[in-house]
Amino acid sequence: MPRYVPPLRDMQFVLHELIQVTETFKEIPAHAEVDVDTVNAVLEEGGKFAAQVVFPLNRSGDEEGCTHDKATREVRTPAGYPEAYAKYVEGGWPSLSCDPAYGGQGLPHVVNQCFYEMLNSANQAWTMYPGLSHGAYEALHAHGTPEQKATYLPKLTSGEWTGTMCLTEPHCGTDLGLLRTKAEPQADGTYRINGAKIFISAGEHDMAANIVHLVLARLPDAPAGSKGISLFVVPKFHVEADGSLGARNGIFCAGLEHKMGIHSNATAQLVLEDAVGTLVGEPHKGLQAMFVMMNAARLGVGMQSLGLTEVAYQNAVDYAKDRLQMRALTGPKAKDKPADPIIVHPDVRKMLLTARAYAEAGRALCVHTALMLDKELSHPDADVRREAADEVALLTPIVKAFLTDNGWIATSACMQVFGGHGYVREWGMEQYVRDARINMIYEGTNTIQSLDLLGRKVLADNGKKLKAFGRRIAEFAEDAGVREDMQEFINPLADLGDKVTKLTTELGMKAFGNADEVGAAAVDYLRVVGHLVFAYFWARMAQVALDRIQADGDAVDPFYRAKLHTARFYFAKLLPETASLIRTARSGPASLMAMDESLF
Amino acid sequence: MPRYVPPLRDMQFVLHELIQVTETFKEIPAHAEVDVDTVNAVLEEGGKFAAQVVFPLNRSGDEEGCTHDKATREVRTPAGYPEAYAKYVEGGWPSLSCDPAYGGQGLPHVVNQCFYEMLNSANQAWTMYPGLSHGAYEALHAHGTPEQKATYLPKLTSGEWTGTMCLTEPHCGTDLGLLRTKAEPQADGTYRINGAKIFISAGEHDMAANIVHLVLARLPDAPAGSKGISLFVVPKFHVEADGSLGARNGIFCAGLEHKMGIHSNATAQLVLEDAVGTLVGEPHKGLQAMFVMMNAARLGVGMQSLGLTEVAYQNAVDYAKDRLQMRALTGPKAKDKPADPIIVHPDVRKMLLTARAYAEAGRALCVHTALMLDKELSHPDADVRREAADEVALLTPIVKAFLTDNGWIATSACMQVFGGHGYVREWGMEQYVRDARINMIYEGTNTIQSLDLLGRKVLADNGKKLKAFGRRIAEFAEDAGVREDMQEFINPLADLGDKVTKLTTELGMKAFGNADEVGAAAVDYLRVVGHLVFAYFWARMAQVALDRIQADGDAVDPFYRAKLHTARFYFAKLLPETASLIRTARSGPASLMAMDESLF
Repeated sequence: MPRYVPPLRDMQFVLHELIQVTETFKEIPAHAEVDVDTVNAVLEEGGKFAAQVVFPLNRSGDEEGCTHDKATREVRTPAGYPEAYAKYVEGGWPSLSCDPAYGGQGLPHVVNQCFYEMLNSANQAWTMYPGLSHGAYEALHAHGTPEQKATYLPKLTSGEWTGTMCLTEPHCGTDLGLLRTKAEPQADGTYRINGAKIFISAGEHDMAANIVHLVLARLPDAPAGSKGISLFVVPKFHVEADGSLGARNGIFCAGLEHKMGIHSNATAQLVLEDAVGTLVGEPHKGLQAMFVMMNAARLGVGMQSLGLTEVAYQNAVDYAKDRLQMRALTGPKAKDKPADPIIVHPDVRKMLLTARAYAEAGRALCVHTALMLDKELSHPDADVRREAADEVALLTPIVKAFLTDNGWIATSACMQVFGGHGYVREWGMEQYVRDARINMIYEGTNTIQSLDLLGRKVLADNGKKLKAFGRRIAEFAEDAGVREDMQEFINPLADLGDKVTKLTTELGMKAFGNADEVGAAAVDYLRVVGHLVFAYFWARMAQVALDRIQADGDAVDPFYRAKLHTARFYFAKLLPETASLIRTARSGPASLMAMDESLF
Repeated sequence: MPRYVPPLRDMQFVLHELIQVTETFKEIPAHAEVDVDTVNAVLEEGGKFAAQVVFPLNRSGDEEGCTHDKATREVRTPAGYPEAYAKYVEGGWPSLSCDPAYGGQGLPHVVNQCFYEMLNSANQAWTMYPGLSHGAYEALHAHGTPEQKATYLPKLTSGEWTGTMCLTEPHCGTDLGLLRTKAEPQADGTYRINGAKIFISAGEHDMAANIVHLVLARLPDAPAGSKGISLFVVPKFHVEADGSLGARNGIFCAGLEHKMGIHSNATAQLVLEDAVGTLVGEPHKGLQAMFVMMNAARLGVGMQSLGLTEVAYQNAVDYAKDRLQMRALTGPKAKDKPADPIIVHPDVRKMLLTARAYAEAGRALCVHTALMLDKELSHPDADVRREAADEVALLTPIVKAFLTDNGWIATSACMQVFGGHGYVREWGMEQYVRDARINMIYEGTNTIQSLDLLGRKVLADNGKKLKAFGRRIAEFAEDAGVREDMQEFINPLADLGDKVTKLTTELGMKAFGNADEVGAAAVDYLRVVGHLVFAYFWARMAQVALDRIQADGDAVDPFYRAKLHTARFYFAKLLPETASLIRTARSGPASLMAMDESLF
């Protein structure tokens, strides 16, 4: 059976030594009092909850899955799921970063994100039930009427109710402009909604008293395409004026998908049969409102793969130290044993370090991005908010796509460490691979993320956002570059920065002539920029480690030695992927587009 | 539901236009009469069997899996499996490439391999039942006594009985030297065998009257380690002198593994309880005898991933042509429809072409290798046999590891084309990904394959085998290099050839100083050499296509245009991976080995 130990030490390193989040908190009145001890205490307790309550249900939940009762159209989650959720609510966890005006604890998002990393390591599928609520909460908080806020936000904050995002329909996923669900205005100001939705995560379950569905639909007078979509809130049970639950609303689960992974999350087909809802935000502007939720959700998906990478790594390390098989190529190491532990083999270490390096850089990037989100949402200075928003916009598709592609690579590598045992369910590794696979698809496929990055976030504003991040890197390289012991990190970082600048300019020029240049290069481009960002964080982490090693000498906490080794590994073995990616990104669309469709 | 159309046209291209297998058959007396029409007719019928009988059971078999009865210790395969196997036997398919002395049809292995590609596309897990028999057949054919041959080979040839390879034990997979199963000699010349085996594919089932287990075990006087292992044949039911089945032998299924994929193949835990077996080959030389089987099995595993890549490609193409979503970046293409089919998007084409390019080059490599195997086994000239054996030895780890890594990449890419639908079981795509994953593990993990290639096959004989293959490439480049229209293929091919030579020399030198250089570089090295081999075949395929386009002008079969497009795609988008791989292969073991085990 797998094990999971919350990586509190590394979180503390990232939060306090690398990024020094509390320095930023001091600039934000709402968070000014949140100190290091508070952050650490919350994460320590959160880690206990994840490891002790949620983690033990991961494999049993995967085996059992959810059950749909065709007659009642209700869904039963696996054994122990409702009870764990009740403990979650009881512990006040749903409210961590919610608005105190609605009962929230008002902690920074960055703290909540770290908590979510641990929940995702423990059980991604379970975590999606509370996780989806955040999207509904954010959309209502940003666009709801005072009545909607009063009705729904306290219950979403306490976790008594959960939420969903109902976007996809059978004929439209990426292309929401094609959606057909209809909303008819009623005399009382409500809307009657009819249609069918699919792939609704946490769409129906037995864990909370009510489910607050955020539903995209078309009004009768809606223009065609994506400019005719409105957002509605549609509760599973109507809510009476006194806040108590009323009659069942006309939104039902018609069936569940049978999936490769995340078996214990109910991926629901929902039918709306004269469901009654109220409009959120302005008519026909539902997509904009929904994108607020989707951006947060995309960070959340990156966090899911970070969580899986971490837990897969921990278990692969245990196995690699434990499993005796063959001798080291350089001669026996464990002479008293019949064979050496497989961690003596260079390629086993390569697989382990791949996961480790991706997890630790991913954690740094997620914490940085979440802190930027806190600045965007809560900083008193409008310029700071705008700059932070730009940076969040730039980094969001990278967090989503780069971390989930890396999570797929890393979980598969960790599974490979187990040999045949990795393929057997009992060991739990293959579940991490299956669960990790969805993260490359939902909340916008990774191809869509790459188009968002290169097309919208980089080229559409002439590289302004990218240049701002580039300045961040250049300043750091300027400062750290004077140190001899940082050359091994700063040189390749600066070199890659130059290459990204050149590649971006080149693609921008080409895109004027042929829009397919963007489509052909985007996926490779995103990975190149992802590596630039990771190289930046690895160089910074190496600097912190070097400083501590210098300061503490032989007495240094070995944590810093491990950090330095992992940084070196990253630069030696993972960053060089950019050499190929830059070539393929530059090689254009001709070899993709020349073949006639009929010849495929 | 997925579809599958046997790729007969492409097989014919590879067999007859690219490799001209019948020219080689003419040099081999046993196959001299096998002409183009015979080959095509066999594969056409074989394709029908795969598509019509085996393919329809693929998804239902995955859903149902195998059932183990704890009381009887028998295994039931999914509905339809025994009936499909009966048809397989009835059609004479098991005997295709078996020795006519035992009732076989004596066809070349290359024909059987092409047939197996189709079976694997149709249903990898089903195909493993007859597939494993080949290993037992080969081992007994090469090392069995006349009595063993007379007893077992006719039944394995007809398919009335199936076979297994019983190697792995709970504490030893890669390191067979650790195995503990014991064989005690009896007065009658037989052996009583006791022990436990795991991960025995097709280890117990209800598809054939008897199962012929080939079992590795230790004799009482066996030296420790891998030099003390002997091979035994242990039938599930004893065979009487008249060939009829006698009493049940003491080899039982103690349980089945629950796995990520290949659900419908019984991965058995076998216990040997005073099982009676006879020795195959010499005492303590079981591993050598087993390696005969394992080499053939490794080619077979490459063929499994080739099959999955092909079928995943076919279905992803259908979906990409059918699914309407978004408009092309260059403007609407299907103006009469609400959106364009997603095949207009460059990255969707990239995912499709990745699978296509890997499948078609993989097919060429497999056919070439299987033909070399026919030469090795049956050519009248001993020098030719030796050269062919060297080439098979060199190419086997590449077929096994490169094709299975590519199969993982390709099936995952094809699944990604489906978006969320790819993650749902109903569409069948996620099963291809799950099934493909085992191929990177069993029959020697891909890390082991890479050590076999770099350590044993390349460095251990000073690059002799690699140089021989290099001469093949150099001769072709010399010939084709005079053509202007071949420059785009010959230049990168020759360039990569030079780089491989240089890299090999460099690694050989470094390995003298530090054996970990081999372990650190091997996996990357194997992919580089794999790409060299693929580039060679793609250049040759492009040449055949160019010749036909030149000869037939506008009337040319569009098949050749597609071949040329796919070749160009391969050189533009896949081959550049070598730029990164060469760097990481050269970057040495330091970044892997420096970190103390305790710091992981």
